[in-house]
Amino acid sequence: MPKRLTLATAAFAAALAAPAYAGIGPQITNFTLSNGLEVVVIPDHRTPVVTHMLWYKVGSADETPGKSGLAHFLEHLMFKGTAKNPAGRFSEVVATIGGQENAFTAADYTGYFQRVPRDKLQTMMEFEADRMTGLVLTDEVVRPELDVVLEEQNMRVANNPAARLGEQMDAALYLNHPYGRPVIGWRHEIEQLDREGALEFYRRFYSPNNAILVVAGDVTPEEIRTLAQEIYGKVPRVAEIKPRVRPQEPVQEAARTVTLADPRVTQPSLSRYYLVPSSTTARAGESEALDVLSHILGHGANSRLYQTLVVDKAIAVSAGAGYDGTAVDNTRLSVFATPKPGTSLPQLEEAVDAVLADLVANGVTAEELERSKSHMIANAVYANDNQRMLAQWYGASLATGTTVEQVRAWPDRIALVSADAVRDAARRWLDKRRSVTGYLVKDTRHEEKRS
Amino acid sequence: MPKRLTLATAAFAAALAAPAYAGIGPQITNFTLSNGLEVVVIPDHRTPVVTHMLWYKVGSADETPGKSGLAHFLEHLMFKGTAKNPAGRFSEVVATIGGQENAFTAADYTGYFQRVPRDKLQTMMEFEADRMTGLVLTDEVVRPELDVVLEEQNMRVANNPAARLGEQMDAALYLNHPYGRPVIGWRHEIEQLDREGALEFYRRFYSPNNAILVVAGDVTPEEIRTLAQEIYGKVPRVAEIKPRVRPQEPVQEAARTVTLADPRVTQPSLSRYYLVPSSTTARAGESEALDVLSHILGHGANSRLYQTLVVDKAIAVSAGAGYDGTAVDNTRLSVFATPKPGTSLPQLEEAVDAVLADLVANGVTAEELERSKSHMIANAVYANDNQRMLAQWYGASLATGTTVEQVRAWPDRIALVSADAVRDAARRWLDKRRSVTGYLVKDTRHEEKRS
Repeated sequence: MPKRLTLATAAFAAALAAPAYAGIGPQITNFTLSNGLEVVVIPDHRTPVVTHMLWYKVGSADETPGKSGLAHFLEHLMFKGTAKNPAGRFSEVVATIGGQENAFTAADYTGYFQRVPRDKLQTMMEFEADRMTGLVLTDEVVRPELDVVLEEQNMRVANNPAARLGEQMDAALYLNHPYGRPVIGWRHEIEQLDREGALEFYRRFYSPNNAILVVAGDVTPEEIRTLAQEIYGKVPRVAEIKPRVRPQEPVQEAARTVTLADPRVTQPSLSRYYLVPSSTTARAGESEALDVLSHILGHGANSRLYQTLVVDKAIAVSAGAGYDGTAVDNTRLSVFATPKPGTSLPQLEEAVDAVLADLVANGVTAEELERSKSHMIANAVYANDNQRMLAQWYGASLATGTTVEQVRAWPDRIALVSADAVRDAARRWLDKRRSVTGYLVKDTRHEEKRS
Repeated sequence: MPKRLTLATAAFAAALAAPAYAGIGPQITNFTLSNGLEVVVIPDHRTPVVTHMLWYKVGSADETPGKSGLAHFLEHLMFKGTAKNPAGRFSEVVATIGGQENAFTAADYTGYFQRVPRDKLQTMMEFEADRMTGLVLTDEVVRPELDVVLEEQNMRVANNPAARLGEQMDAALYLNHPYGRPVIGWRHEIEQLDREGALEFYRRFYSPNNAILVVAGDVTPEEIRTLAQEIYGKVPRVAEIKPRVRPQEPVQEAARTVTLADPRVTQPSLSRYYLVPSSTTARAGESEALDVLSHILGHGANSRLYQTLVVDKAIAVSAGAGYDGTAVDNTRLSVFATPKPGTSLPQLEEAVDAVLADLVANGVTAEELERSKSHMIANAVYANDNQRMLAQWYGASLATGTTVEQVRAWPDRIALVSADAVRDAARRWLDKRRSVTGYLVKDTRHEEKRS
């Protein structure tokens, strides 16, 4: 679901639904270095391994209009070396020691991570601190990397009708806010990105006072404090960071539809996005209610949508819903369904709307409320066993304006969500005037012409 | 039709369809002062009156995202006085001498005009040159004027369901380009506009090298050259003006709809916007073909849409089309129809689509081509008799990248449009994937609840 996170791996997206459980998870420590770098330490002593993540509080929503794709392009360019470490050396070292690495860009943040044996943490920190301000870019490395990014856009979007529809739906959902543009960028704008623009963006946003270091694994807060101060503490603040004030949405008052027809579509589908508050913009308890609402509506085979459309009416092969609450600004709650052969998209949409209308009118049952909440809280507890998911969850939350304490207390807040709160959230936010409905259909015009 | 021009008076919109006729109109002279001010002189000696217009090549599409409405707000603030001329004096003088004045803001330009006896031209120039760089703004005048603008937004947009639908359609038509936001601004952003922002915008864009002076009336080029040099020539260049490079549209590949339901709607209606080239972005001849196409399709009672929907099928009370070619970037061709009672919007849309499909498939007849072209050229010839329309036409054209010679030759280019060119333009640009369809409907939910 989280289209704004398409550039992260699939596992990251799952992590967003699986936060820590207050009081049960590891003792998390956080502090800030004198140069402004926030540090989060998540102890996990089961294996002598560490996850080292550096998050920058900058993403595609912070790009200058007309330069979409720049945050993601810079993420690629961050592997091009510094005066101290030539291009490729960092990745080579990670590979040699049997580590894993990755990087990801989203609307609100950009992150770099390595998972390595614990005795290599210092090396990772040295590499990461070095490229925080030391990146060296030449046209020789920038041009070919642009081709790599364009090919990525080809593969992920241009040749993927569902992804293209998602882009067009985001553009229609957001009338004014930069979440309306794709994280990977509009192709015609990616093509114009260059070295100077990337360096300017880098100098403006890559600075210790705009970053969060998350270290999870077989470490203690004390050693991380010492190590981080010694290595990252030397990196000077190079930029003054302004508050992230993006253009906000006007009152949304007109339901939209977007239809994408493509000859390659083998399975038509229906999607709906609603513009809703994020955990950062919501009133107290409302983001949690939306989380529970989306769970009851569309998470798994017990959900309303699945039970009604797939099981009872047997008009859909799949159906579900999701809520992407980890965002600086207003986000979306999405609903989707794919029809069985013989069911048209308008028929399917009518059935989806009936499920939503029933929930708005009659609320949820005590039984489904408890089942969903238990499931969500259990997931959060299990997430404590997954070092990388936990690091991801804290990083993404802190990068979008949530505190460590708020993340820890999330299960407690979920436990407090009442049936009334879920119904109220449905009434307030499942408002078609704040929505866009997407139709993915097979384009049969070519065949018609042939006959 | 030209929603982007809503802040200009209705007469101006009409003028855009009525350019000069080459070789027949007045001898137009144009030159540039050493400080960069372009000057256009349009002699018209029938009455001892002059139209004095100053155009700035800046409009709502040049605003910083998040500050929508600033160009228009500044237009209002331009009447707040200078060190030399306190607030109100300029307007008072115009009124005292029996003149008229107005100002207007569009996506691509902002203009100020007075129509006065010819012996008062120098006075107008002095006032206008004075406020080009001499504006003085205090919070005492800015705050109340913001309330005036908010009330204007209330009247023109908030309380006008059709205008609100138009805003939402523009936002859906433009996925990336600033033409997607309203000229008057999004209300929540207008509310945040302030003195500092207005002054910054003013200093950035109000400079002789970013302006066009148009003088039409009982004057000679020689006297205007002398007068303009003497008065406007003294105004220093205060800003370096960068090329107007706005974020452009990605490939449009998904048809959109927007539905606005409001209890106050008494007459439902259907609109369709297509994203098409403007006279500035089109290939040679294509903008003229689009002009003829929109005329054949929807101008007057002989047009295809009117004949089919209102006369033959009798399912609509009105129907038409328009093309707004005077724009820096890609613009729109619009189609509209209002149903007779008993006709649903989907039925009406099907009939509209049939008219468009027929034109795309079979092109236009020689007879309708000639009739439309003659009508358009005749309109252009008649426009030569309207001093203000002519001044408006030249000003808007020059402010959006067209030359005086191109404006003059427009009727000749229209005369050259072939039936094939019209059909080709229809085939290429009446593509639903590049369109948004708007439905304005009565919201009956309240009544349903009552029953």
